Amino acid sequence: MSTTTHAIAAATPGAPLAPATIQRRDLRSDDVLIDVAYAGICHSDIHQVNQEWGTAIFPMVPGHEIAGVVAAVGADVTRYQVGDRVGVGCMVDSCGECEYCLAGTEQFCVKGNVQTYNAVGFDGENTYGGYSRQIVVKDAFVCRIPDGIELDVAAPLLCAGITTYSPLRRWGAGPGKKVAVVGLGGLGHMAVKLAVAMGAEVTVLSQSLKKHEDGLRLGAKDYFATSDASTFDVLERRFDLIVNTVSANLPVDSYLGLLRVGGAMVSVGAPGDPQFYSAFSLLGGNNVLAGSMIGGIAETQEMLDFCAAHGVGAEIETISGDQVNTAYERVQNSDVRYRFVIDASTIGA
Amino acid sequence: MSTTTHAIAAATPGAPLAPATIQRRDLRSDDVLIDVAYAGICHSDIHQVNQEWGTAIFPMVPGHEIAGVVAAVGADVTRYQVGDRVGVGCMVDSCGECEYCLAGTEQFCVKGNVQTYNAVGFDGENTYGGYSRQIVVKDAFVCRIPDGIELDVAAPLLCAGITTYSPLRRWGAGPGKKVAVVGLGGLGHMAVKLAVAMGAEVTVLSQSLKKHEDGLRLGAKDYFATSDASTFDVLERRFDLIVNTVSANLPVDSYLGLLRVGGAMVSVGAPGDPQFYSAFSLLGGNNVLAGSMIGGIAETQEMLDFCAAHGVGAEIETISGDQVNTAYERVQNSDVRYRFVIDASTIGA
Repeated sequence: MSTTTHAIAAATPGAPLAPATIQRRDLRSDDVLIDVAYAGICHSDIHQVNQEWGTAIFPMVPGHEIAGVVAAVGADVTRYQVGDRVGVGCMVDSCGECEYCLAGTEQFCVKGNVQTYNAVGFDGENTYGGYSRQIVVKDAFVCRIPDGIELDVAAPLLCAGITTYSPLRRWGAGPGKKVAVVGLGGLGHMAVKLAVAMGAEVTVLSQSLKKHEDGLRLGAKDYFATSDASTFDVLERRFDLIVNTVSANLPVDSYLGLLRVGGAMVSVGAPGDPQFYSAFSLLGGNNVLAGSMIGGIAETQEMLDFCAAHGVGAEIETISGDQVNTAYERVQNSDVRYRFVIDASTIGA
Repeated sequence: MSTTTHAIAAATPGAPLAPATIQRRDLRSDDVLIDVAYAGICHSDIHQVNQEWGTAIFPMVPGHEIAGVVAAVGADVTRYQVGDRVGVGCMVDSCGECEYCLAGTEQFCVKGNVQTYNAVGFDGENTYGGYSRQIVVKDAFVCRIPDGIELDVAAPLLCAGITTYSPLRRWGAGPGKKVAVVGLGGLGHMAVKLAVAMGAEVTVLSQSLKKHEDGLRLGAKDYFATSDASTFDVLERRFDLIVNTVSANLPVDSYLGLLRVGGAMVSVGAPGDPQFYSAFSLLGGNNVLAGSMIGGIAETQEMLDFCAAHGVGAEIETISGDQVNTAYERVQNSDVRYRFVIDASTIGA
C-alpha cells in the first residue's frame, strides 16, 4: 500500500534532474505525512547525484533540508497534529537503542542512521528525499518549526543550520568570544548568522573580498581575504574558535596560528585528500583540531527554537522545480547567495 | 654579587656532562634559595644538550624537575620559609601581566616565559637548571611539595607529572571514562598513574608487550601492543581520551579510529615531521585532535596536591651525579623504569 507523489529525480548517476512520480508508504502508527513546502539544495545533493561519494541508489530524489506542514499522522503520533509546521533534516531513522541514540546523537547510531535519501531503511525500502510534494517520516525524526520563522528560510536550517550550530555550541561561541568562519557559502553564511546571534564577535575568512559587504550585512565585524598572505600575520592568535566550512585542502598550520591559547578549529566539511599539520601547532597553544557532523534530533530542535527566538533564517533564492539543473550549475560555480530552496508546490505542477 | 654552587654541566653542544661550578644570584626580595635534593632527567634535557632544538646556550646545566628544601628567602617572600619542601618545574619567570599569565597559563606568556635552563632571564642572565646543589627562583614560580610525597618521587612530577595531569583534567579523565595512554615511558607511566588516581579505566598502548606486567602494576586495566595490527580492530571506538606521550610519527587516523564519539586524542610530545590525517576521521565521530604543553603554576600546585592526596609519585631510579652520562644513554635506549633522578647531594661531593 502506498500513495503516489510528484518528485524531481535523477534517473541514473549524473543524469539531469527531471520530474518523476514516486511512492510514499502508507502511514505506520508512528509516521507523519508532510506536505513539503520548501526543500533546500545542499552541495551534498550534487555530490550524491553525481555518485561522487561511493555507489549511490537510483533513481535518486535528493533533498534533506525540508520544511512543510503536517497533512496526516499515524494512530500513535501524539506530538504532532495536522497543520503543524515541521521540518526534516539529514536522517529519518536510527536504531533508537544504542548509547549514541540514547544520548541524542542519532547521527552516530551504532547500527547506522537511515539517511533521508540515497539510503535503504530498516524496512528494506529505499528512501527518497525532499524534492517532492510529500514525504512520510517517523515522528521521532520530525522537528517542529516554531512560528516566527517562515518555512522557506527555515528549510536550509535542517542541514546547513544544525551543521554549524552544533560546533558553535560545543566549542563555546558566545559573548566575549572571537569566532572566525572560513568560507561564506551555504554553511558559512549560517555559521556567521548563528555565531552573531549567540553574541560572538565574528570574522569571515574568505578567499577573496568579493562578498565583503554581504559578510558585514550578515553581522560579521571583520572580513579578510585568505589569498592575501598578510591576513595570517594580522590575525595571529586572534580567535577562540575557527569554524571551517570549506571542503578544500587548507594550510592547517597557518589556520592553527590564528587561534588563541586553548582555541579550536572545527571542520564541518571534509576534503578527500589527507591533511597535514605540525604537532607543534597544536602543542604550542594547547590548541584543538576537531570535526563536527550535523547534529542529533534534539539539538536540531534546539537550533530551530534558537533561530526563532533570534530571528535567524537562511538567506535564500527560491526556485521552481524546473530550475533545479540550472541551480546545480550555479551552486557548483559558487553563484548563489546563499541557498536555493525549491518551492515544492511547483513540483509536477 | 653571587654565590658559587656545584653543578653538572655540558660545556659545549653534545659534550659529556661534567662537574662544574656556577654562580647563583644573591637573593632579590622575591627570591627563594633552594637546596636541591633531587633533579629528574627528562628526555628533553638530552635534546637540548645535543642542541637538537635550535641553538642552545652553553655551558648548559640541565634539569627542570627539581625538588628540594628552602634554604633562605628574600625580604618580601611570605609564602615560603626556610625548611619548606618545594619544587620547581620548566619555568622560572614570565611577564605576569599578559592575559595568559593572568589566566594562570604562564607557559603561554605573550612575552615568552623564562625556561629553567637554556634561557636568558628578563635580567639578561643565563638560567641554569636543577642538576645543581642550589638554585635561586622567584617565589611565584616555586610550588609547595606537600608532606606525604617523598622528594625523590616528587621531582619528576614537576615536568612529567604536570605535562600529563593537565590534559587528563582538561579532557575529563575520571570515573566512567576510558583512557588510553600511548607509550609507557617517563611521561606515559605518569599518565597511567594519574588517570588511574582520577578514577578512569586505563589502557596502555605500547609498541610491544615488554612492559605488560608493569603497566598492570601501575594500575592499567588493559595493555595492547600497537605493533599488532589487530589491536586497532579490537579497540575500535573504545576510548573517551587518548593521551599520546610518544614523540614519534604515528598513523593518526588509526588512533582516531579508537575514539568514541566526541572523544579526544591529545599529544604531549611532538615529532618533527608533519603528521597526516583524514578530515573524515574527525568528522565521523565529532572527534578531537589536540596538543598540550606542560601547565601553569597554579595547576602544577593543584597536581602536587592531587598526587599527595592520592599517593602518586614517579617510579624512579636514583643515581649519583657521576652517573648522568650513563643515564642519558639508557634514556635514549628506553632503558629506564621510569625516571632517573639525580641525588643532588652527590653533585661536587
